[in-house]
Amino acid sequence: MDLRNTVLSMDEWTELIHRAETGEISEPLENVDHDNTSPYDAIFVGGGAGGRFGSAYLQARGGRQLVVDKWPFLGGSCPHQACVPHHLFSEAAREMDYMRWNADTLWFGEFDDKRASIRDLVELFKAGRNNPHAFMNWQSKEQLGMEYILNAEATVIDAHTVEVAGQRYTARNLVLATGARSYPPDIPGIELPGVYDFATLIEELDYEPSRCVIIGGSKIALEYGSFFQAAGCQTTIVSRSPLMRTHSLHHVDEDLRTYVVDGMRKRGMDILEGAHPIEVIGNGKVTGVRMRLADGTEQTIDTDFVFLGTGERPHSQPFVDALGVQVDDKGFIQVDSRMRTSVPGVYAIGDLIGAPMEMFKARKCGMTAARNIMGEPYEFDFSEYPDFLHTTYEVTWVGLTEAEARQRYDDVAVIQMPPKGIRDDELALPCSEGSMLYAFTRPELTGFQKAIYDSKTRRLLGAHHVGFGAKDAFQYLDHLIRKGITVDEMGEMNELFINPDHFIQLSRLRAGQHNLTDL
Amino acid sequence: MDLRNTVLSMDEWTELIHRAETGEISEPLENVDHDNTSPYDAIFVGGGAGGRFGSAYLQARGGRQLVVDKWPFLGGSCPHQACVPHHLFSEAAREMDYMRWNADTLWFGEFDDKRASIRDLVELFKAGRNNPHAFMNWQSKEQLGMEYILNAEATVIDAHTVEVAGQRYTARNLVLATGARSYPPDIPGIELPGVYDFATLIEELDYEPSRCVIIGGSKIALEYGSFFQAAGCQTTIVSRSPLMRTHSLHHVDEDLRTYVVDGMRKRGMDILEGAHPIEVIGNGKVTGVRMRLADGTEQTIDTDFVFLGTGERPHSQPFVDALGVQVDDKGFIQVDSRMRTSVPGVYAIGDLIGAPMEMFKARKCGMTAARNIMGEPYEFDFSEYPDFLHTTYEVTWVGLTEAEARQRYDDVAVIQMPPKGIRDDELALPCSEGSMLYAFTRPELTGFQKAIYDSKTRRLLGAHHVGFGAKDAFQYLDHLIRKGITVDEMGEMNELFINPDHFIQLSRLRAGQHNLTDL
Repeated sequence: MDLRNTVLSMDEWTELIHRAETGEISEPLENVDHDNTSPYDAIFVGGGAGGRFGSAYLQARGGRQLVVDKWPFLGGSCPHQACVPHHLFSEAAREMDYMRWNADTLWFGEFDDKRASIRDLVELFKAGRNNPHAFMNWQSKEQLGMEYILNAEATVIDAHTVEVAGQRYTARNLVLATGARSYPPDIPGIELPGVYDFATLIEELDYEPSRCVIIGGSKIALEYGSFFQAAGCQTTIVSRSPLMRTHSLHHVDEDLRTYVVDGMRKRGMDILEGAHPIEVIGNGKVTGVRMRLADGTEQTIDTDFVFLGTGERPHSQPFVDALGVQVDDKGFIQVDSRMRTSVPGVYAIGDLIGAPMEMFKARKCGMTAARNIMGEPYEFDFSEYPDFLHTTYEVTWVGLTEAEARQRYDDVAVIQMPPKGIRDDELALPCSEGSMLYAFTRPELTGFQKAIYDSKTRRLLGAHHVGFGAKDAFQYLDHLIRKGITVDEMGEMNELFINPDHFIQLSRLRAGQHNLTDL
Repeated sequence: MDLRNTVLSMDEWTELIHRAETGEISEPLENVDHDNTSPYDAIFVGGGAGGRFGSAYLQARGGRQLVVDKWPFLGGSCPHQACVPHHLFSEAAREMDYMRWNADTLWFGEFDDKRASIRDLVELFKAGRNNPHAFMNWQSKEQLGMEYILNAEATVIDAHTVEVAGQRYTARNLVLATGARSYPPDIPGIELPGVYDFATLIEELDYEPSRCVIIGGSKIALEYGSFFQAAGCQTTIVSRSPLMRTHSLHHVDEDLRTYVVDGMRKRGMDILEGAHPIEVIGNGKVTGVRMRLADGTEQTIDTDFVFLGTGERPHSQPFVDALGVQVDDKGFIQVDSRMRTSVPGVYAIGDLIGAPMEMFKARKCGMTAARNIMGEPYEFDFSEYPDFLHTTYEVTWVGLTEAEARQRYDDVAVIQMPPKGIRDDELALPCSEGSMLYAFTRPELTGFQKAIYDSKTRRLLGAHHVGFGAKDAFQYLDHLIRKGITVDEMGEMNELFINPDHFIQLSRLRAGQHNLTDL
């Protein structure tokens, strides 16, 4: 279907995507400038975050691109199965948690567990997800001027050629961007109905789970587990490593970790650290999980719902076969800091090249590939980045933990709330957006915040936050830490009181101090 | 009561403050170092935000200070009657609004208007406010090393002398910091029971209002009005100027204003712009407000509750009498950019010197006075600052509006969500923390965001946001705008997806573009 000369409205796009998803339209959705005879600078194989942002950047630099995706929309798995539903569920978890703690006080009624439904939320998401999809197609075409072919899988022929629906397209470069998907652990019974990952949860859940066992201790485990628990589904996390103390999460401050994990336990979750799943039990459908606990004993938990919070693997084999690109032992394509693979003219970006599987990385990988393709040498180092996860809180961190800072610097000043030596249940602080009501009903639920300074250079080394409303700020804090922001400069900023992170005013209470000390 | 050698716990402080408030303890609460024979560098008359932060900074620079407050706690009106209860009420308003829009869907039950009570929230706040008070006393003494006398009014004798409970204290400098209070408009009946301001609402409300008329169109009018309405109390705002288009609010973008004010109307508030109150009617208690509407006709609204959203005035007369400090026609003390009054050695800070009556200004005024007193020439220009207000949303802005930018720059690029030409009810974006559920139920409630760039220098000129979770970030955006952050630098930041403000990723979609255009 040639859409080149048609401007569709949101509703028309939504309808078109729906018809493609149901199979009513099986032909490709094409926005290709057939009159343009100049060669493509790059074809992006995969139109998720990396492919779309890479395409936009290439366009911005005056290049010509084509992006191809098997789905009938750009944006990839994030708005379809991953970050967007996760954020919807996390907002629901926060809200249900809030309504539970405050049940039958003030204007809150009893919390009705029977109304809280995982499946309802999944259905709500599915009913609405094509609207953001529609927007991304619209924006990419009308605002960003991208060329794309959707609803059609690209087959890579060689380093300059891609075949889509029987047509061949050539380009100076290829950018591989097909992402990763859940990789089920090798446990008997893992294929049973009733075992879900974040993607199949969206596509296939057809009953209301009454009991949940999560296998794995990744971010996803904490995030989805908090949602299931908040929705009244008793949840057990079975994790080999202590939560938030895994290789995949860096710079997790121990005080922050304690606040978060204690908070999950406080909400009734069972967290089995050092436990190994042995078998998923069932007879045509999951009925339980057998595991070995940290103390060596075995235990079986009856459950009708198992959720995988283990890792993801890339779908790189077709590229290995067609191009011979070098991959690591898990199949992730190996690239340099310019996103160049081992094959000249072939780039790879996003989840396909490994951790961290975060949005900023995927998008900036795309931008990096685009810049290099357009002749600008540009390197992207994503070894350091701000990070976050959701439980029923926003949990955010950037820079060094207190322990890391003390290891690397002689003299460290820690500013935190509640201050060391004051229990969280005796102080209504931090009190700020999203935890104001808790400050007056349950002080221990108001969150935790910590900033770490090098006393000598007075520079901010790290910031850590559990609460609400500070996630957005940590993007900018990351930038400021890289620029070497000091406690004195923090103290001169203009806060918007009551600011969710109290870093500016707390820093000001120590700014100007000759020998910087804790607060 | 000499507390110099006593370390009180939070509970002990809370109890002590309570006993002082009820009059059981009438003597001053003293933390004064009587063994120290060095002179005071400054006495801060008033221990609110400015006095406390000024004291902390003076201490940090090695100076000796004394701070005196008539209340038995430091921190001033903010945690007692102003910003803290306002934030509690605004969080409640947001939550009630959320529960109303989602009533009887998903896990939400019917919203029970009968349970929603303004008075309950006031009582909840009053029952808990002494805990933050306790903390500020504790922190100021144990962590910051301040000297203070609380529960005792300071009388200024001359430019170096203050009398407190019959004792005289001398210092090199005085810092006046006694704030401002509501200034009722000159309307017949304004003194009737049933007319409240933000302070008397806390101290005196003894019934549940059923109908509200707000006189004035200040920030407070929008904030408290949104709360009253959310709590089921039908609210009318009577404002001479259009809301958010008053002298006291600068840099309000017209699109942001429209979204906010339309949102208030959508929630059932009556907003009468261009209306003048003529008389508060009542017979021993308020029964109505008579006003002249914009079209010249008169109208009377029956009501049992009138709330003042007009301005504030300082309590400066004692200082004029004792010192002869120069004041303006409203009584605000006049200072230069170092916070120096017309009387040598006498400084004034905070609300006492006029608008903006914001926390950042009060605190940084205190810091500025402290620096200058300690011999460091330091100027504080608060003519430009980030700003915010709450309705049932967080509304934040910094820098120039689109109209201002277009006036000052030849070529301006505007990046906004929803984009120009797309209606907010046809697009589920912005979808982000706090508005995820709305994205799937009521797209028109998801908020609004706009960033404005100078196309030539590529610098960020202004940012405007209606939603949730971006307030904290605007503190840092203000700093970055002052540093000249460009669209390309924004595009290289590491976003924490789904970030409440989408400025980083939207900027990245235009970063690198030779001729910067709208998005």
